[in-house]
Amino acid sequence: MNDLTIELRQDNGKHLYEQIYLHIRREIRKGKLLQGEKLPSTRSLAEFLQVSRSTVELAYDQLLSEGYIEAKPYRGYFVCPGEGLLDMGEEMPEDGWKGWKNEEKERKEGHGTYGMYGSGQTYEYDFSPNTIDMSAFPYATWKKITKGILVDANSEMFLPGSPKGDFILRETIAHYLHTSRGVNCRPEQIIIGAGNDYLLMLLEKILGRHVKIAMENPTYRRAYRIFDSFAYRISPITMDASGMSAKGLRASEADVAYVMPSHQYPTGIVMPIGRRMELLKWAGEKEGRYLIEDDYDSEFRFKGKPVPSLQASDRGGKVIYIGTFSKSIAPAIRIGYMVLPLPLLKIYEEKCSFYSTTVSRIDQRILNEFIGKGHFERHLNRMRKIYREKHDMVLNGLKGMEKSFTVSGENAGLHILLQDRRGRNEEELVGAAAKAGVRVYGLSEFCVGEMAPQWKADTVALGYASLRMEQIEEGMKRLRDAWA
Amino acid sequence: MNDLTIELRQDNGKHLYEQIYLHIRREIRKGKLLQGEKLPSTRSLAEFLQVSRSTVELAYDQLLSEGYIEAKPYRGYFVCPGEGLLDMGEEMPEDGWKGWKNEEKERKEGHGTYGMYGSGQTYEYDFSPNTIDMSAFPYATWKKITKGILVDANSEMFLPGSPKGDFILRETIAHYLHTSRGVNCRPEQIIIGAGNDYLLMLLEKILGRHVKIAMENPTYRRAYRIFDSFAYRISPITMDASGMSAKGLRASEADVAYVMPSHQYPTGIVMPIGRRMELLKWAGEKEGRYLIEDDYDSEFRFKGKPVPSLQASDRGGKVIYIGTFSKSIAPAIRIGYMVLPLPLLKIYEEKCSFYSTTVSRIDQRILNEFIGKGHFERHLNRMRKIYREKHDMVLNGLKGMEKSFTVSGENAGLHILLQDRRGRNEEELVGAAAKAGVRVYGLSEFCVGEMAPQWKADTVALGYASLRMEQIEEGMKRLRDAWA
Repeated sequence: MNDLTIELRQDNGKHLYEQIYLHIRREIRKGKLLQGEKLPSTRSLAEFLQVSRSTVELAYDQLLSEGYIEAKPYRGYFVCPGEGLLDMGEEMPEDGWKGWKNEEKERKEGHGTYGMYGSGQTYEYDFSPNTIDMSAFPYATWKKITKGILVDANSEMFLPGSPKGDFILRETIAHYLHTSRGVNCRPEQIIIGAGNDYLLMLLEKILGRHVKIAMENPTYRRAYRIFDSFAYRISPITMDASGMSAKGLRASEADVAYVMPSHQYPTGIVMPIGRRMELLKWAGEKEGRYLIEDDYDSEFRFKGKPVPSLQASDRGGKVIYIGTFSKSIAPAIRIGYMVLPLPLLKIYEEKCSFYSTTVSRIDQRILNEFIGKGHFERHLNRMRKIYREKHDMVLNGLKGMEKSFTVSGENAGLHILLQDRRGRNEEELVGAAAKAGVRVYGLSEFCVGEMAPQWKADTVALGYASLRMEQIEEGMKRLRDAWA
Repeated sequence: MNDLTIELRQDNGKHLYEQIYLHIRREIRKGKLLQGEKLPSTRSLAEFLQVSRSTVELAYDQLLSEGYIEAKPYRGYFVCPGEGLLDMGEEMPEDGWKGWKNEEKERKEGHGTYGMYGSGQTYEYDFSPNTIDMSAFPYATWKKITKGILVDANSEMFLPGSPKGDFILRETIAHYLHTSRGVNCRPEQIIIGAGNDYLLMLLEKILGRHVKIAMENPTYRRAYRIFDSFAYRISPITMDASGMSAKGLRASEADVAYVMPSHQYPTGIVMPIGRRMELLKWAGEKEGRYLIEDDYDSEFRFKGKPVPSLQASDRGGKVIYIGTFSKSIAPAIRIGYMVLPLPLLKIYEEKCSFYSTTVSRIDQRILNEFIGKGHFERHLNRMRKIYREKHDMVLNGLKGMEKSFTVSGENAGLHILLQDRRGRNEEELVGAAAKAGVRVYGLSEFCVGEMAPQWKADTVALGYASLRMEQIEEGMKRLRDAWA
């Protein structure tokens, strides 16, 4: 009974039964109570500790349910066999964390593991091609819709929804895609998911593992990393003035091509209808060939109407259309969508439709109202105007540099490209800009494997979405001086 | 010029330039304007159509940017080569949809592709083991928190967050897991994701493709389907009274074992500490061996304290702990979390940390306040009371059936098991119940491969979470009659 001299306290915030349970557990772990050893009966331990018998019973019950002791009929309670228990300290060893980054510290100091600055250098003016302007976001409207939806809150909205996303939102998106992008699809073909990365992971489940994928070069590096993490065999296909070369695609032996026909990232090239037909023809020649169309920023075009999607020209069920609200609404809302052609929809239904949806139904409903009640269109119109002003401010800022640079990609999207005409390479351009506190992005950052001759390392990208007008003005002024 | 007799209308909602563009595009697609054919100059077409020259220029610009025509310096505009254009109808063929299910119709009729009833039969009382009670959810609190967060809304919350989830929420979850489940972890080890299915997809990227996984049999079928979709080699390991047999696990040659130690689904077995140590020992014997602990419903225990997690006993960095708020808050909020041991965290940081988070930052912030301000604990206490009442009502309803059935799994979770003692099989039990309008679930529905002898097809599961008290009372009464 020596081992069970338990110092019970009324004031340590723990029930008496819990203190007894913890004490015995500790004794077993330390090996002071040995395997097979008999515990005192509940009656005698209760008397010894001067507590009620039910208190001891509760403690024994807990030890029983966790398997530290066992009850033998007519004989009493015994310590269970438990190899390895003795080695168990109370806490996890801390050694493994040596040299590990401290996220909390990083967070407090304002530079996390993600974020804009990888190098440690900070810039006064960052012409990142990968940001958006949130200053004009209709927070009040979003809040009002959210409130309205939570007023009607019925438990249905908190119950599991369709794996593809709620039908009502898919109807709304199908309608939006048809009118704004010429996409021909039924709501049944749409799968809503928490961002493009997730949708590509789902697509991997549909297309399978052994995919040979062709990508434009230069391209969107994030997509490259994702396909690389799938261990897809990736063929970078050099871009010509019309986009991915069909000849290059044929030579690559790829099954699937990932393209951005409406506004290629980062080159800004719009794929002409002729090239689109060539790619569709290629896809149509063999079963299992597909084109992934990433229509990431088609909402913003500064000249004429939006260029229709590639999917709009697809008559053979060969285009997988992927879009997102990250650019047009906000990156943090985590809602994207994928339109599957019929053959892939069949595979999805057979093999993947049990994966639960990744988007909360409340968020789906908020987005559905935001689009359905016209707020999205109004927001887009507002943003087009704002981005056009910024875009014009950038082009304006280029005045005086016409002889030094060729501008391209300026009809759409949220960035432009500048190609040096005086033989300076991107390193010089980026470096001179950095010295003036301005960040611009060399085209080689977007390249995969070898750079094609026409995309020489003499080009930089300037994004302007998140900069304010006066920042653009000052930033461009500094660039003019830096690159003079 | 015959082809360009365009009937322009002021009243069809389309700009004049758009009508011209659409007309020419149609003529090219139909092959009435041939490849290489010269278009009229903007001036002459403007005169011919009696519109301003800039209107025609806009139309030509759009055709140019989409690549239907090209501009040759000093010569004019020409139709581009475009093989395949001729085959292009205006709409997608509809044939492919024959025999396809119509989700809209299904939705209107109230039975979707997901949902409780697969067979078409409807039941008055459904003892599904896979539902929760949302009637006591604190909607008002949730709404208030949401409103409060949107009041503070700054653009930061709408910008991209950390791929692992916001640090503040990971801190809150780490604290909660430590106090309630004994989990030893730093916020750095936690990855927040949109549900367990997604987290398992992410885990596949970390563990790799060629994993041999051991699963308890019977088990959670959804997890089985997910691992099957990864093409993992799955070894079902028969459960004994302590859970997954360590001997069976050794014989399986698996690298990874998926277990539910706190309350196995569906058997309700709590894995005793001795078996836990055996499994941890197995994992510790070889590099690359891991235990996935799915702690899906540990919050609800009706006897004593919650049983600590398996992760709490792990000293070797061998347990991957997965949890969710689907059971404890709501299935539709789509927030789960995964605690990675250090060796896997390293792989995650190296290979997978570029995947964007799948949970919106607003939702993360709402959840963070819900837990941090004590609402979650209060909600859990309320739900424990409600579920205990329902649980007692079920056990009460079993009175008079003691001789016919052995009850198990009744100390925790949201369902119990009934094993027939009179030689009836589950088919008979399920069938008799169905005739009385009551749905119960045969244990074989949870089995993978062959059923072990001790889990004979003579057991049914009864869940009670979403039924109201009076429904449970009446349902149990009917079962007593049906199984008399």
